[in-house]
Amino acid sequence: MDENVATLHRAVVEHMVRQAVYQRLGKALPSRASAPNPLVVNVSARHCHLTQETVEILFGAGHRLTVHKWLYQEGQFAAKETLTLIGPRSRVISNLRILGPCRSLNQVELSYTDGIALGFDLPLRISGNIKGTLGCMLMGPAGFFEMTEGVIRALRHVHMSPEDATFYGVEAGGEMELKIGGPCGLSLDKMLVRVDNNFKLEVHIDTDEGNACNLQPDTPCELIK
Amino acid sequence: MDENVATLHRAVVEHMVRQAVYQRLGKALPSRASAPNPLVVNVSARHCHLTQETVEILFGAGHRLTVHKWLYQEGQFAAKETLTLIGPRSRVISNLRILGPCRSLNQVELSYTDGIALGFDLPLRISGNIKGTLGCMLMGPAGFFEMTEGVIRALRHVHMSPEDATFYGVEAGGEMELKIGGPCGLSLDKMLVRVDNNFKLEVHIDTDEGNACNLQPDTPCELIK
Repeated sequence: MDENVATLHRAVVEHMVRQAVYQRLGKALPSRASAPNPLVVNVSARHCHLTQETVEILFGAGHRLTVHKWLYQEGQFAAKETLTLIGPRSRVISNLRILGPCRSLNQVELSYTDGIALGFDLPLRISGNIKGTLGCMLMGPAGFFEMTEGVIRALRHVHMSPEDATFYGVEAGGEMELKIGGPCGLSLDKMLVRVDNNFKLEVHIDTDEGNACNLQPDTPCELIK
Repeated sequence: MDENVATLHRAVVEHMVRQAVYQRLGKALPSRASAPNPLVVNVSARHCHLTQETVEILFGAGHRLTVHKWLYQEGQFAAKETLTLIGPRSRVISNLRILGPCRSLNQVELSYTDGIALGFDLPLRISGNIKGTLGCMLMGPAGFFEMTEGVIRALRHVHMSPEDATFYGVEAGGEMELKIGGPCGLSLDKMLVRVDNNFKLEVHIDTDEGNACNLQPDTPCELIK
């Protein structure tokens, strides 16, 4: 679905160019360039996933999410729809972006910075594992929805195909390290590996992690087992 | 000046207990416990340093900063006084804390998260090196002050005494790595080493770095050359 991708990520272009240049020069590819796929690192700003039922409560009966921007993973998108989150201490986050398509559960992913602003003590969870977490109130143009649980800080993770997992020598559920360069570089430990046939190689970190190292499109990143 | 220190940092207590326990047991101290001083890692939230002249413009002639809380470095304090920062796009940060005592220059230290909120493109600088950086408007109860430069993201750094520098085998101006443990641990590269006879061993990171790894008082931290 090429029409879904508005612009190519810089890492994708660099990877293609690197492979082409080494081939032209007749030189052996260095390990990074010989990877089956480019490494894309994206920062996920605060967002939520909703069920279709919740979308209809918040935006009206029969409402469907509309695409604002396609994301790097096939078929995933940032919706035009945003909502207001009201925390347990009545503090508010406006313009919380909804990611589509709808899922089978409601989940809000915030950074610890957001959590401090809201007075939330956020649990660190693998996306989807929300049992026993705090809830919040969501407000849309057509109504309110009380989430009884599902507000988390998502564990940093990397999406990859089985082919990538073989290249890096890792398995689903394992952990990797992401080394990020630049003048305030850092290495993120305990990056959860998620493997699926449909996944494109992509690391998701949150805004705290991205801002700690000032991640930019041209910041060098390396995935280490 | 013991009366300046309201509570002992957990790392200081742990270091004393560790040394006492090993001594009691008659065992050799492991490398970390044999360090001359405990390693304290503190998160610096956004703040500013001001000259006495600027304090008087903002708070009135003859005004002196008053102590809200003593900091870990001898004689340094968070002042009761706070002010309002107005950025170049008229966005505002309220309750910006002033750190005392007064210095010979005005400097505002923000996180990249703050910079994004303000629409500022923050330069990464060693504290004190503010030439050519952006300015802002400061507002206090007695007046406004236009800073023509001095808004930065401070480079992460570690304060230490010459004794600590000898133990770690580093020199002033050098770089170290800080390894932070826990469920979302990370390693911060390029931690600037600052050495002074009066410095207590202390790492300063900002809120983005602290929140990226959810730094808590009991999070294990290790300084590596």
